Amino acid sequence: MPPALPPLHCPRCDAEVRDFAGCAVCRAEGVGVNPVPPAADLSGLSLDSFPGGPWGWPTALPVPGPPVTLGEGATPNIRIPLEDSPRGGEVVVKYEGANPTGSHKDRAMAVGVAAAVASGADTVAVSSSGNAAAAAAAYAGRAGLRCVVFTTPAVPGPLRAQIDALGGVRVVCGDHDTRQAALRESVERFGWYPLTCYTDPSPGSNSYANEGYKSVAYELARDFGESVSAVVVPTSRGDLLSGIARGFAELRSAGLLARTPRLVTAEPDTAAPLAAALAQRDRARQERTRIHHRLSPAFSLGERTPAWQALNALWQSDGAALALPAEEYLAERQVLAGQGLFLEASSAVAVRAARHWAHDHGGLVIALGTATGLKDTSALPAPGEAVDRIPELAELAIH
Amino acid sequence: MPPALPPLHCPRCDAEVRDFAGCAVCRAEGVGVNPVPPAADLSGLSLDSFPGGPWGWPTALPVPGPPVTLGEGATPNIRIPLEDSPRGGEVVVKYEGANPTGSHKDRAMAVGVAAAVASGADTVAVSSSGNAAAAAAAYAGRAGLRCVVFTTPAVPGPLRAQIDALGGVRVVCGDHDTRQAALRESVERFGWYPLTCYTDPSPGSNSYANEGYKSVAYELARDFGESVSAVVVPTSRGDLLSGIARGFAELRSAGLLARTPRLVTAEPDTAAPLAAALAQRDRARQERTRIHHRLSPAFSLGERTPAWQALNALWQSDGAALALPAEEYLAERQVLAGQGLFLEASSAVAVRAARHWAHDHGGLVIALGTATGLKDTSALPAPGEAVDRIPELAELAIH
Repeated sequence: MPPALPPLHCPRCDAEVRDFAGCAVCRAEGVGVNPVPPAADLSGLSLDSFPGGPWGWPTALPVPGPPVTLGEGATPNIRIPLEDSPRGGEVVVKYEGANPTGSHKDRAMAVGVAAAVASGADTVAVSSSGNAAAAAAAYAGRAGLRCVVFTTPAVPGPLRAQIDALGGVRVVCGDHDTRQAALRESVERFGWYPLTCYTDPSPGSNSYANEGYKSVAYELARDFGESVSAVVVPTSRGDLLSGIARGFAELRSAGLLARTPRLVTAEPDTAAPLAAALAQRDRARQERTRIHHRLSPAFSLGERTPAWQALNALWQSDGAALALPAEEYLAERQVLAGQGLFLEASSAVAVRAARHWAHDHGGLVIALGTATGLKDTSALPAPGEAVDRIPELAELAIH
Repeated sequence: MPPALPPLHCPRCDAEVRDFAGCAVCRAEGVGVNPVPPAADLSGLSLDSFPGGPWGWPTALPVPGPPVTLGEGATPNIRIPLEDSPRGGEVVVKYEGANPTGSHKDRAMAVGVAAAVASGADTVAVSSSGNAAAAAAAYAGRAGLRCVVFTTPAVPGPLRAQIDALGGVRVVCGDHDTRQAALRESVERFGWYPLTCYTDPSPGSNSYANEGYKSVAYELARDFGESVSAVVVPTSRGDLLSGIARGFAELRSAGLLARTPRLVTAEPDTAAPLAAALAQRDRARQERTRIHHRLSPAFSLGERTPAWQALNALWQSDGAALALPAEEYLAERQVLAGQGLFLEASSAVAVRAARHWAHDHGGLVIALGTATGLKDTSALPAPGEAVDRIPELAELAIH
């Protein structure tokens, strides 16, 4: 661990952690926990003047400058129409597709690459199904570092092209386990700086990088104050979710926000370890939940175990975990696109869950729209109305 | 012309114009001119509190509310490293790929669809090679209108998928002229609301829509004040360019900016009517320039004639027109992507031109990075370093 960066501690057992493999003490107990740097002290700061983005409040980050930035964060809030809202609920999508590489991962990788620079690394390495790889490649390129991406053949075409264009060196591994092993080997043998994790159960991505996600909470607090009742996050390992939870906790500690929202995870029902965990009453069992997961059109999501910090975010916020079938979130994706908002399938999982939550509980519900639909155009239904001859215009006009 | 919207006048001959076919008087003289609504009065407004986006100052628009919005505008400024800058020049990319559909066209289509709504239209129609179509489809969907897109088979795959997903009804025409004729027919026979033009020489897109581009000038003025020496715009019909010019003119009239920057157009050398026009000394000849243009990897760019308002923007700002060969802007695209900024080829034309301008003239040069590279991944070079077996890792480590 480089001396320039503050030490990491396990939020579950308080052990100091000196690598990026998660807490070894908790791992021995069968629980994947990502350690965290000390919480930031936001007292004296003003939400009104927060400019947005992970570097908006540099003192909130554990990484020294200079910032590695491509203009990430400060994403727009887009209210979506609800047909049926018996309790007066509202849904707003925070559209993270507006980030430089088209996903929320930019917030984390901006900070993670700065941490790599502070550590003296010349190569960063990630194990990723797509969005994290594109973000890591972009910020590594920005900082003049090399980026090696351990991936699988399942990455959608446009995203693969994006990673290649951004200079990411793709190492195509046969499956998830091979990919994790390759990342571990590269970290241990070559000293490459890992921006994602390589142990099982996977605790989550680089702890310094994840601090970039706190800025989502700061932006929501600036834009909506205490009026947000719930934030729905599409969740795999829970990096985004737990970063948002930490951001809200810091705001509350500093007296900048008296009331923080409930946090809700949205998972595809084919890979929903958090929903499976919360279905059990005992926290010790919840922590150790194992599921059989399957691939889904929500290609960014898919875990076998609940990351502890994700569970903790739900426990602390009186949260909930929703699991949705593919037919629901693919339909949601199509509805949203027809209304102008074209999202990745994984993002649509959160929007559909937010719709359910607003229907059942009311209040202002934020859904994290994590990535643009341009990342993956493969799971789209065929267009219904395309015509290819001018004479057919008249038929269109009759509609 | 609907009574709710202010009348349009030709900026060249001052004739009133009552449709979206450009100024008929000037067309008869062989010059394509887009009419404009009255300039907005910005006096009393403060740049410091401008929130960005086309709707940031609603009174600056000729279209009544409510806004049709997906959170467009307020795009980030990204400084790019220059290896060689003898005159101390700097280049900043204003990254329009952060817009909801991934291009600057969102600024215009947000306003254009609002104009369609104000006009009572139920269908909007565009003739577009891609970005404008995706934007029109998105905002039409947002407003509950139908969008018909007249296009050609040349649209890149991801962009085509995006248009389809957003609910655009694609009518695939064999070539540019057929497409324009189809749009004209749909406007005249069915009363569809045109968001792009259908006459030749093409004067440019819907005049109300184009007012959305003024917000680019407002944002630059807010972010950089009077320190910008030049703004480089990738130019086809010059909608973006002339919108920016109008925005700067309004700022100057209101006393919000004492000095406005030079405007520079960037064109692929296979379709560079503005560069060809400026090479002639006489304005009457410049206005009537005709070139033979060819398709290029900068698929968003390509015109046979210089739009008059684009020429006028160059004349008024002591501007210039640069034409670049494909090998230069494709190399630029690759360099930028390797530094984290993945742009459409057309955008790279502007960045390369800005690099030249900064080198030769110094000063702070803004390049409009009009669209994300995710729109078109077809013109990318093959990756050089991808590996597919773990044992090869050791070779990578040696680098």
